[in-house]
Parts: sequence; structure tokens; C-alpha cells
Amino acid sequence: MINNEMMALGKKSSVIREIFEYAKKRKAEIGADNVFDFSIGNPSIPAPARINETMKDLIDNKDPVALHGYTSAQGDMGVRSTIAASIKRRFGVDATADYIYMTCGAAASLTITLNALLNAGDEVIVLAPFFPEYKVFIGKAGGVAKVVPCREEDFQIDFHKLSAAISEKTKAIIVNSPNNPTGVVMSKETIKSLAQLLDEKQKEFGSDIYIIADEPYRELVYGGVEVPYIPCFYDNTVVCYSYSKSLSLPGERIGYVFVNPTLKDSRDVFAAVCGAGRALGFVCAPSLLQYTIGECIDEVSDVSIYDKNRRLLVETLSSYGYKTARPDGAFYLFMKALESDAYAFCERAKKYELLLVPSDDFGFPGYVRIAYCVTTEQIERALPSFKKLYEDYEENK
Amino acid sequence: MINNEMMALGKKSSVIREIFEYAKKRKAEIGADNVFDFSIGNPSIPAPARINETMKDLIDNKDPVALHGYTSAQGDMGVRSTIAASIKRRFGVDATADYIYMTCGAAASLTITLNALLNAGDEVIVLAPFFPEYKVFIGKAGGVAKVVPCREEDFQIDFHKLSAAISEKTKAIIVNSPNNPTGVVMSKETIKSLAQLLDEKQKEFGSDIYIIADEPYRELVYGGVEVPYIPCFYDNTVVCYSYSKSLSLPGERIGYVFVNPTLKDSRDVFAAVCGAGRALGFVCAPSLLQYTIGECIDEVSDVSIYDKNRRLLVETLSSYGYKTARPDGAFYLFMKALESDAYAFCERAKKYELLLVPSDDFGFPGYVRIAYCVTTEQIERALPSFKKLYEDYEENK
Repeated sequence: MINNEMMALGKKSSVIREIFEYAKKRKAEIGADNVFDFSIGNPSIPAPARINETMKDLIDNKDPVALHGYTSAQGDMGVRSTIAASIKRRFGVDATADYIYMTCGAAASLTITLNALLNAGDEVIVLAPFFPEYKVFIGKAGGVAKVVPCREEDFQIDFHKLSAAISEKTKAIIVNSPNNPTGVVMSKETIKSLAQLLDEKQKEFGSDIYIIADEPYRELVYGGVEVPYIPCFYDNTVVCYSYSKSLSLPGERIGYVFVNPTLKDSRDVFAAVCGAGRALGFVCAPSLLQYTIGECIDEVSDVSIYDKNRRLLVETLSSYGYKTARPDGAFYLFMKALESDAYAFCERAKKYELLLVPSDDFGFPGYVRIAYCVTTEQIERALPSFKKLYEDYEENK
Repeated sequence: MINNEMMALGKKSSVIREIFEYAKKRKAEIGADNVFDFSIGNPSIPAPARINETMKDLIDNKDPVALHGYTSAQGDMGVRSTIAASIKRRFGVDATADYIYMTCGAAASLTITLNALLNAGDEVIVLAPFFPEYKVFIGKAGGVAKVVPCREEDFQIDFHKLSAAISEKTKAIIVNSPNNPTGVVMSKETIKSLAQLLDEKQKEFGSDIYIIADEPYRELVYGGVEVPYIPCFYDNTVVCYSYSKSLSLPGERIGYVFVNPTLKDSRDVFAAVCGAGRALGFVCAPSLLQYTIGECIDEVSDVSIYDKNRRLLVETLSSYGYKTARPDGAFYLFMKALESDAYAFCERAKKYELLLVPSDDFGFPGYVRIAYCVTTEQIERALPSFKKLYEDYEENK
């Protein structure tokens, strides 16, 4: 027998995948412009021109053996120094290259961190709603995911529930802010309270409890909202970063793990990160992308279109009567379904050619995720359908 | 406690790493030209010009959102079709895109394949001498590495020893041809005998035993030697390929897994490969590299310098009295140490500024690996040192 768990995982068709297939079929039937697909969380704006210029410049001017050659497993020292300096400049944390490990993107950052930290049976708390792959990554690393729902009124942490869920088995908690699928940014008050609670629990159990800060959406925030940098508030923090969304490079697989230098036994944890990266088969992050990041640190795609889409959607859908989470970041709107069964709601939305993702796989039923990383025209054309969908429910109460 | 195994792995300094640090220090002391470093297996010739031209062309002309966007987890369908067609054309195997899974290089190909196939406690046979990371990858996938030494006279498989090592616990055998560290190509007779033995053992134990063909050095062969394509000889074969060495792109991390369509339950195994890639955090292979490979299929770096280096080394070292394995491929020469302790031999070689890798970590003591992916001038300048080293042993017998 081969590994049945991996086989099942490979065969399992995700809801988003099913919507993708349906969209393809439906677009062929009625024309692409008449199908309003809000299911896919891919950046829809191009990478900054400077990224492409830098890549070409590196190809033209850097020695090809060095450019395409292995970097050290942790990543090129110069690039890591540049990233560390940026962290220090932006957040005031004493980052150095010795605590930066370059990765093949956010998923790799997470699997490497989880495999570095976890022993068999350790628990990792995930705050619902959450990115569904967390459960896959935690399980493969030998851990057990423990789901704690957020407060429905604002999707901040429910500290009563969280406190009850932490035990001597708790090794880590994943904090994803701005959040997929809600777009909510965890407030400074939330992060402060979280740090205080975890400090108390560490003392109570004589254990280390790590915050894994999953931050691919850090640069995608709107209206001047600030995303608290967790290492400023809590020592035992590991940051998992990716340039996929901020630079519209999701296919290129580039990101990093940053082990907070004030984390307890931080050198040991960093060594474990290096060991996990090695054992999982990551050798090094793609070299051309590493050098490109080194030249374009702090570059960000123009996210004004996302912001425009967000405002248009929130304002108009609210005026129709829909209720949504407050979307300060990422490119997702989390909207309450008009019936308790989100699958049924999404089926009815299809009648109006609206393709939405039911929230059940995110661990928080009764909602849909609307990915607004699409053209503004698509949203404008889709709004009448949202209106009709609402009226349909009103008329058939 | 964090994961101690990963921490130990991250802290363990490899022999090659130690040599690297020594080389840096020694070069600072006596000048880089006077230190003869043969320790590192990195391509020393540049990627073909067409690779860089293709990358720039893609950056200039392909829609950036598509170019840098997610491909499907298995890889871009067009690229996979191109690879499958190439396999079919070159080897006559009925490959299709549905059996190709693009990866972040050879190490990823191996970890994904091992995690797809193995259940806890399964045994994987590795033929010594072998690439040391095999043990790390097998262990992390829950398996147990079982080492079977090759015949010392030609480094082909010792079938007597292999037959004795196969049991009902044997899930796979890794075949690495051309081999790191010996440069030996497994002959057609060897592969035929291996297929026959495994067929018998599969019947005897009522099990499936997979050949994992680790082939990063396939295109690096000299003197018209043919590397048998194992899927032509044995159904239960999974090929782990990488473009790192053939295109001098080791830092860019691009390769693939090819599940032989005639492998038993090949769709299930392919699904498990997809599942393992997902659970380990590989989302997709770097997109720019995928599209570049799609445009440059069957392109190979000019390996004539490796061949020149190889002939120069083998002829001259043999004339001094050294004994080596027959290096038909890769860019390694496996040379018998002049005393049984290869570490002691390497220490004495340092007196003559020769930096060689002792073979103990490859699971076959008493030899050294000489990586000849260096300039021909370095070899020419190093030859007198090899001569003096030999004479040193002659004089101090």
C-alpha cells in the first residue's frame, strides 16, 4: 500500500476547484462576461514594473553561474540582510540576517515552521474562519489542529474561548492578519490581549507557546489601517511571510521565515527551521527571485484597484441589506449568507451567475467568501445580480 | 520542546560545509589560485544563452499576471505536455501530461515521491555509495533506509547483497544513475537484472516494490554512453528529474516527478504525489521557470568542459598510480584513498592544498569524491599536488 492519506488528499476536490470547473463550463455556455466568478484569491493586478526590470537586469548583468546557482540553504546573505534591515526600519525589531530563512512562499514558510516546532500530538490552535490548508499542514507535521471560533460581531479573537482551548499540549497558535477569508485586521488591543494571555498560559504550564504570524496579506490594507507587528508584542513569535500577494508573484514562490531574536532559545528554533527546510526537500528558495527581492525591498504592487473594488462592494451590498465583516485588508469580503446553509445559498446565487465560496471549509459556516481581486467592471456588472439574489430571498421568506 | 530531530539536523555541520569554511580561510591566507577546491558539486558552466533569452522574452511578452501567477498544483498543462512529449520521443514511453508533476527540483521530487509512497516503518533500499540526503528524506517520510553496497570493482549493483536485503517491508529502491558520488552509469544489463529481481520479489511477497529513479545527471554523460531509461524496463518506476545540472540552474529549483503510466494503480500513485506535494507546502513549481522549460525542452548546457576535465583527471591520476571508478557521467570522480581512513587521507591532501571529500558520508568508506565541475586551469594547476600526494604515500609506506 502506498500512503493512503496522501492519496486521499491528492484526490479530494476542493470546493474552489469545483467552482472553477463549473465556471469554465458556464462561461462556455453563456459567455465569460456573463459569469461573475468571485471564487479565486489570485492577485489580479500585475507585479510592479520594477520587478520585471530588475529580473531582466539581473539576467543581463549578473554572472549566470552565480545568478542561477545554489544560494546557502537559508538564502543569500545579502538578501537576508536587506530583509532584516527592512524589518528593523519598519517595525523597530532587532532583526538580523541570522534569523531570516528564505522560503518558496507562504505555504513553505508554514510547513517548515510547523515541522520545526511540533512533536507528534502537539496541538496548534487555529482561529476560525481560517485558510483550510492549515489543517493539512498541521496534520502532516504530526500535530493536531484545535479550532477556536472568532467573535462573530467583529471577527477578533474570542478570548474566553481561546483561554479554554489552551492546554499543556498547546505548542502554537496561528494568527493570520489581515485574514483570509474575512479581510479583518487583528487590532492592537487584540494582539496585546493575546500576548498577555499566552504569557500567563506559558507560566501556568511551564511551556513555550509560539505565535505563528502568517502574513502574506500584510501590505494589502486600506484606509490607513495599521497591522500590528506581532514580534513587537510577544517574544515567542515566528513570522511566515510571502511576496505572493504584495508583489503579485504567487506562482514564483518566494517568501521567508523570521524567527524573532527575543524568542526563547531562538538559535535552536532557527536551527530547527533550517533542519525542517532540509528534510522537506527545500534546498533553497529560487535564486533569481531572491536576488530580485533584494533589489526591490519594500516595493509593493499598486493596490488601489483592490481598495476601489472593496469600497464599491461593501457600500453597495450593505445598501441592498447584506451583512459583511469589516474588510480592512487582503482582497476578501466575508458576507453572511441569507440562509444558514451557505452551500444552499451559493447554489441559489448561481441562478444569478454569481460564483461565491461557501465558508464551511474555512471552519465558520453560514457565510460566503467574495474574492474581489477582479476587475472593477466585473463587480459593476455583477451588482444587479447581488440585488436580485437579495430580493429573491426577501420574496421567498 | 521544539522538534529535536529537526534542530539537530539544522545544527549538524556537513563535511562539505566544513571544507567550504576551511577553503575560505585558506584562500585568504595563500591566495585563491593556490587552493584546489574539488569539494562542491555545483555546475561551473553557465546556463545555455537560450534559457536567459527565453526568460527575458517571457517577461517582456507574456501577460505578467499569468506569467507570475499560480499554475495548477501539478504544473502548467502546456509545459507538462511538452515534457511528456519529450519523454515519449526520447525513450518511447507512453508519457502524458497527466503523469507529470512539476517540482521545485530534485530534492523536492524525492521528498514528494517518498511521502507519497511510504507508510511508517517501510524500508527504502539505497545503493552505496549514495547522496547523503537520501537518509534524511527517507527518515522524514517515516521510512527506514537500508544500505546495500555496490560491487567495488565497477560500482554496479551487487545482486547477491541486494536480493538478501529485500523483504516484505521493502517499499522502494533508489537508483541514481549517473551516480553521485561515483559518476558511474548503471548498465543496461544491471537495470534488466534489477527489473527481473524486483519482479520476482514482488511475486514472492505479494507486494509492490518501486524503483525511484533519481536522474538529475541524466544529460551529463560522456563518450556516447547510454543511460538506460528505467520505465522501459520496469513498470513500477517513478522518475525524479531536475534541470539543475543539465541546464546549470541549481538555484532556481525546477524539476518534475514522472509516474510511469504502466505502474500498478498509477492514477492512485499520481494522486498521492499531488497530495504529498500539497501537504509538504509546495503549492506549485516556480512559474517563470516552468514556462522557460516549456520553451527550451531538450536544451542542454555545453558539457564539453566537464568531459575535458574528466579525461584530463582520469588519465593523469591513473598515470600517477591512483585507482578510480569509471566516470561515464555526472561531474564526479570517485578515487580510492591511499589509506583505509579517507578522513586521514583528506587531511594529508590538505598539505598539498587539495580539498577532497571523504566518502564515509556516502556510505562507502575508503574513497574520496573529486568534483571536477571546476575550470580546466584549476585541474592543470592541481595535478602536481596530486603527484606529490601520491609520492608522499610511496615514500612513507
